[in-house]
Amino acid sequence: MIGEKIRVGLVLFPELTQLDLTAPAEVFGRIPGAEIHLLWKTLDPVSSDRGLRILPTTTFAECPELDVICVPGGPGQIELMDDEITLQFLRTAAAHCKLVTSVCTGSLILAAAGLLAGYRATCHWSSIDQLSLLGVEPIHERVVRDRNRITGAGVTSGIDFALTVAADLVGHQIAQEIQLQMEYDPAPPYQAGSPRTAPPALTEAIRQKNATFIEQRRSATKRAAEHLANTLE
Amino acid sequence: MIGEKIRVGLVLFPELTQLDLTAPAEVFGRIPGAEIHLLWKTLDPVSSDRGLRILPTTTFAECPELDVICVPGGPGQIELMDDEITLQFLRTAAAHCKLVTSVCTGSLILAAAGLLAGYRATCHWSSIDQLSLLGVEPIHERVVRDRNRITGAGVTSGIDFALTVAADLVGHQIAQEIQLQMEYDPAPPYQAGSPRTAPPALTEAIRQKNATFIEQRRSATKRAAEHLANTLE
Repeated sequence: MIGEKIRVGLVLFPELTQLDLTAPAEVFGRIPGAEIHLLWKTLDPVSSDRGLRILPTTTFAECPELDVICVPGGPGQIELMDDEITLQFLRTAAAHCKLVTSVCTGSLILAAAGLLAGYRATCHWSSIDQLSLLGVEPIHERVVRDRNRITGAGVTSGIDFALTVAADLVGHQIAQEIQLQMEYDPAPPYQAGSPRTAPPALTEAIRQKNATFIEQRRSATKRAAEHLANTLE
Repeated sequence: MIGEKIRVGLVLFPELTQLDLTAPAEVFGRIPGAEIHLLWKTLDPVSSDRGLRILPTTTFAECPELDVICVPGGPGQIELMDDEITLQFLRTAAAHCKLVTSVCTGSLILAAAGLLAGYRATCHWSSIDQLSLLGVEPIHERVVRDRNRITGAGVTSGIDFALTVAADLVGHQIAQEIQLQMEYDPAPPYQAGSPRTAPPALTEAIRQKNATFIEQRRSATKRAAEHLANTLE
């Protein structure tokens, strides 16, 4: 798609985890010819889960046909699991997209819209098991591709995810240029970025700390699964 | 500092590279007791180099005493190199700070304010050599600490940088929790994140593509160096 305009839309919803969106937006914004749309119902500032406020650029109603749709995650994802305006927007947008994508718990939103049924996908480690409730095969990898669906795992995986998407859109050469421009040569200070590598006691402590919240998320996922089953009947 | 309020200020200036700010903001926002201030001259939306608009929370004039000041980088850094309002704000804020920090070419701004003279520091790989013009010892590492100065290299190094800052503020245990919550277990798709690892032809191509811009930056650095020398006389 080099030389053509590439329209990328990222859903900017209240109480999102801002880095789920801002990291891919930084990568996508460096793709030659990319036109980035930050999408929400209105153009009012949207506040992240920790209070960083970002301005949408385009409403759902005004959104042009997109080449890529990307749904980030974060606590506000729970509200969207039965938000028919958002889910219907995603279904309509995805129908025209070359790539239908998500970061973190954004995959649960795509799944609630019925857009991942029968696909392999990933999600934040704390919630990836919930994908199976929505007919999605959970894959414990950082970036998962299945046909035209590309999903990233938790938060910071949005960088690896977006470079993968960039490579798909404009090739390995430009994706590598973007990686070098962004000096993406990570040096994490600890072996603690995944339950696979973190001290088990650390993972268990976080699981316990988040247990109530994860159960709220699970209830929303179950309701979405019921709704999806009724819709498909 | 666990249990106390920790005030962290990030400078949100026009034409910044948004990920230089949003990645550390995501980490800092997860520090228990942290109060995050996005600082600029006014509260109007600030547009990044690629058009993402973020709202400041606090003006320079209204800024409380901070525990940490963090200056991101990006093309708009050039404008700030002789912006006495910003430089004076940084000097005043830094005087009270436990940690004086930057990401990417933000270190050139700190240096222009005279806040890195005689210190070791890092910067984006394309511009790190310019630090020496401002009396700073350039260190080609991803995160560099010298006394109470902590600087990060280009763009994505803001994650490694911010986890290092978090560890300094609240200890290794909480920094590791944040790393796990953010699933920071990077898997870059290419060996292309640094001139050290990237194919030399790729680095050279980017150097040539950016040559004019880097020379603009160098001119601003030289002017800042002259101004700094006059101020210190």
